[in-house]
Amino acid sequence: MRACKPSRIAQVIALSLAAMAIPAHAAKVTVLTAGQIHTMDTAHPRAQAMAYDDSGAILALGDSASLLAKYPKAARIDVGTATVVPGLIDAHGHVAGLGLAKLRANVVDTRSKAEVLQRLREFARGLPPDTWLLGRGWDQNDWPDKQFPTAADLDAVFPDRPVWLRRVDGHAAWGNTAAMRVVKRDLEGDWQPDGGQILRDTQGVPTGVFVDAAMDLIEAAMPAMDEATAERALVLGMQSAVEHGLTGVHDAGVSLSQLHAYQRLADRRAMPLRVYAMADGDGAALDALCKGGLYRHAGGRLEMRALKLYADGALGSRGAAMLEPYSDDHANRGLLLMKPEELARVTARARECGVQVATHAIGDRGNREVVEAYAQALGKAHPAEYRWRIEHAQVLSPEDLPRLAPLGIIASMQPTHATSDMPWAEDRVGPQRIVGAYAWRQLRDTGTRLALGSDFPVESVDPRLGLYAATTRSDAEGTPLGGWHPEEKLTAYEALRGFTLDAAYAGFAESRVGSLVPGKRADFVVLAQDPLAIPPAQLRTLDVQATYVDGRPVYRAGGGVGASPR
Amino acid sequence: MRACKPSRIAQVIALSLAAMAIPAHAAKVTVLTAGQIHTMDTAHPRAQAMAYDDSGAILALGDSASLLAKYPKAARIDVGTATVVPGLIDAHGHVAGLGLAKLRANVVDTRSKAEVLQRLREFARGLPPDTWLLGRGWDQNDWPDKQFPTAADLDAVFPDRPVWLRRVDGHAAWGNTAAMRVVKRDLEGDWQPDGGQILRDTQGVPTGVFVDAAMDLIEAAMPAMDEATAERALVLGMQSAVEHGLTGVHDAGVSLSQLHAYQRLADRRAMPLRVYAMADGDGAALDALCKGGLYRHAGGRLEMRALKLYADGALGSRGAAMLEPYSDDHANRGLLLMKPEELARVTARARECGVQVATHAIGDRGNREVVEAYAQALGKAHPAEYRWRIEHAQVLSPEDLPRLAPLGIIASMQPTHATSDMPWAEDRVGPQRIVGAYAWRQLRDTGTRLALGSDFPVESVDPRLGLYAATTRSDAEGTPLGGWHPEEKLTAYEALRGFTLDAAYAGFAESRVGSLVPGKRADFVVLAQDPLAIPPAQLRTLDVQATYVDGRPVYRAGGGVGASPR
Repeated sequence: MRACKPSRIAQVIALSLAAMAIPAHAAKVTVLTAGQIHTMDTAHPRAQAMAYDDSGAILALGDSASLLAKYPKAARIDVGTATVVPGLIDAHGHVAGLGLAKLRANVVDTRSKAEVLQRLREFARGLPPDTWLLGRGWDQNDWPDKQFPTAADLDAVFPDRPVWLRRVDGHAAWGNTAAMRVVKRDLEGDWQPDGGQILRDTQGVPTGVFVDAAMDLIEAAMPAMDEATAERALVLGMQSAVEHGLTGVHDAGVSLSQLHAYQRLADRRAMPLRVYAMADGDGAALDALCKGGLYRHAGGRLEMRALKLYADGALGSRGAAMLEPYSDDHANRGLLLMKPEELARVTARARECGVQVATHAIGDRGNREVVEAYAQALGKAHPAEYRWRIEHAQVLSPEDLPRLAPLGIIASMQPTHATSDMPWAEDRVGPQRIVGAYAWRQLRDTGTRLALGSDFPVESVDPRLGLYAATTRSDAEGTPLGGWHPEEKLTAYEALRGFTLDAAYAGFAESRVGSLVPGKRADFVVLAQDPLAIPPAQLRTLDVQATYVDGRPVYRAGGGVGASPR
Repeated sequence: MRACKPSRIAQVIALSLAAMAIPAHAAKVTVLTAGQIHTMDTAHPRAQAMAYDDSGAILALGDSASLLAKYPKAARIDVGTATVVPGLIDAHGHVAGLGLAKLRANVVDTRSKAEVLQRLREFARGLPPDTWLLGRGWDQNDWPDKQFPTAADLDAVFPDRPVWLRRVDGHAAWGNTAAMRVVKRDLEGDWQPDGGQILRDTQGVPTGVFVDAAMDLIEAAMPAMDEATAERALVLGMQSAVEHGLTGVHDAGVSLSQLHAYQRLADRRAMPLRVYAMADGDGAALDALCKGGLYRHAGGRLEMRALKLYADGALGSRGAAMLEPYSDDHANRGLLLMKPEELARVTARARECGVQVATHAIGDRGNREVVEAYAQALGKAHPAEYRWRIEHAQVLSPEDLPRLAPLGIIASMQPTHATSDMPWAEDRVGPQRIVGAYAWRQLRDTGTRLALGSDFPVESVDPRLGLYAATTRSDAEGTPLGGWHPEEKLTAYEALRGFTLDAAYAGFAESRVGSLVPGKRADFVVLAQDPLAIPPAQLRTLDVQATYVDGRPVYRAGGGVGASPR
């Protein structure tokens, strides 16, 4: 961590303030005029114009005439009848995962092995030599020869570069000989790994297809991502985010090496948006925070002061820890991924280091353990100042719903999870427990703050889908009519606040972003429609016309803009 | 108050419990099945069937098959695909005022004096002899002869019965000679009352038309309402309420004589719904509560334990007390109707008597005075237990918005006031103060409970209009598109809760009504559509198919049902 040792946050703030101390008369001012600006500032909810200086600091909001009179020499941006809202913040996403998905070859809907090879050949042109060619999406049932493919098929084109292709269902992968070579154990013979299968020919030689847990043999042995690929993944992920109106992302699990990749990008001013990184578990990144202090890059676009933990698994796979057995699997209560005493130890350490804790909890047992660990670690003295978070907070026991607010715990929730899970969620937990699931309104009613996000790339990075799901609790087809458990719907304003001001709060950033107020940063999105005026059913199809961070465009519809030159 | 002296509430409860102690095997059970039942019980939000006994107590909720199996001999009501919700409760209305409006002749849109007389003649057929004939709605500009009418016009048909007709704008009235006879002072001459005018002929004889404050000369001298008329007004008001799906009303200002009228009706089992009466100010009704104790009728449909006060006037007429001058009348800050020391004295007395206080407050000054008086009277020891209310809570200073919740103050608000006032409200208070006006969402966000109502007959008694206004903040034409200050919208669920469970809470009745839960009363409404599933814009036109109180129909579409025979 030598080259980019995280400095103490106080030093960084001092630095940032010094960097901003530009004489007022020198600052070039821009006045933006719009059909309406929803500021998310309750004292002044609406404006028609906003002035900001060259550093990206908001100077004033008001009506067009008075702002243009006040700043007669200002540069002008007029977005016509469009609506401006604060830049959207996804409070829970995985930037590298989103970018990596774009670094994988797509072989979905191929009609033959030849077509797969053709697509891979094209994709490989953009790849540095020797790097792995990863892809996904094949299905031998779509090919004339419905046999499983073999390593030899790939070896013909890629004798040296390792190739590894997940099947369309994710339950098998097809590799070439170069890929299989990374495994130290001899893959020949008649042994099989637990929960998986190596396909072999009659001589016991692996054919190149690995099923379920057998895929781990290759994937665990793959080389760590090189620095250039790591950066490329982050850049692609961030780029996709700003194209959807995001100006901030809380990256839910960042390793120290990923932090370093972010830092290199931040140093080069190549981050188009703000990333609030959570250290990935009780490892090197937390150590760095405890030893080096909470971290903020002087450019204002990168910060790490939080710790991501996992209390349990997911509901779909019945890995979420439940107090009682699953309703559709009576022998199963899921699994805690951290023992209560381990959770107690790590949260106590985080509290000592002043680190915010954000713990993945899906099942009612997982959530209870987290609430209890937080209560114990934070004690009674102003727990709300710590802003600890539960990520997902998906299924809560009725008696636990009111326990979050008094502890100042933020529920970091993903509206699209509700609408993705609704076809089977009640099967898993039954009609009683479903009432405490995806319970946005009940949590709001007990005073809990909701920071909203998507969990991309598990769900789409597109925050419009989150606004839509939050307000309709319906799927893309509008089903069920009137919404699933409609008593938990949010209003459009509440949903927007969850993706702006309350997400900012969850990242200790509400004094800088999340609403459009003089002194804050000019992070905003231009939308062709007014999200607070159109029917919620139309939020899915809002037109994002442009995304601005620090007053500079980082995306414009019809012509993407790269990272702003700051 | 001899015949119906309010008993102490504990005695009444004991009585009621005794009356309910019917052996279980004797109770005839009814099972209601519906498309869906929204219970408003967060633990079990939905059901398809509900069982209740002959006394009107809910026994069970669940799915149709299990309830029909559990109660095989039950009477059945199947409402098909219709939706059942808890009976709606209007937390602020004026029952007698609503009924009196129906006791007045309607002469709106008459095209001649002859048509007025014709309508009055018909209306008088249903009136007892000698009672006043009251009416409203004439406009001489619609008649061929555009002169003001005279007493003589009326005397020709009504030589003895006093007749008194308000003009369409309410600013003048037309009376006959019998009406003018009630005034002791000689109406002839050339004197005029302050703020009003008596129209007179050239000889100084009054013509029969009285303008503005001059109307008080007649109206102050009218005989008090006789008992039969008082009862008739209440019956008509309650009947109108149940026809719109209401099963409860908080009557915001009931005199002791009105309470007696209610008591007579309750004794005769002629109340079709529950009335939570607020004593009208610091007078005889409060004395009765302080001396006789909080009052509840053994039949369970009438209660008085609250006190209605007025802190200030209304916004439309600039009578609401503001901290700063009106934006459209810079010399005017409105008026406090009670001095702070008077408010302090009365609230202290109410607290000593255990009486809930509900104070009308519209302006930000009015609301601040009330919050401060409540804070002082209630002290720091569990103020929430008192459930004191602010009626309207219409314009609040931003710093006062968060002061309600810690004191447990309930905001008793009327969604239709917002949509009625929106054309001119911002003219009165300007763009700054409008942000704290009709601020449902901001109040909810600080943890304030909203009890919703209509303030009928000022607005329509129809709670569908309240649900619509709460969720759309638009007028009947859907204007403005997307709603006025859409950040303050409520979801359909929240609006429904404001008209059910939270209104019940505001009347200390949530253990008996407000949601459909075993042990509570079977007060419910049958709606053709599901209010939580249809778009909010359609809430205006929900079809109310039936209203049930204590398990008995008190209204059925296509054939009204009288008070249930309990």
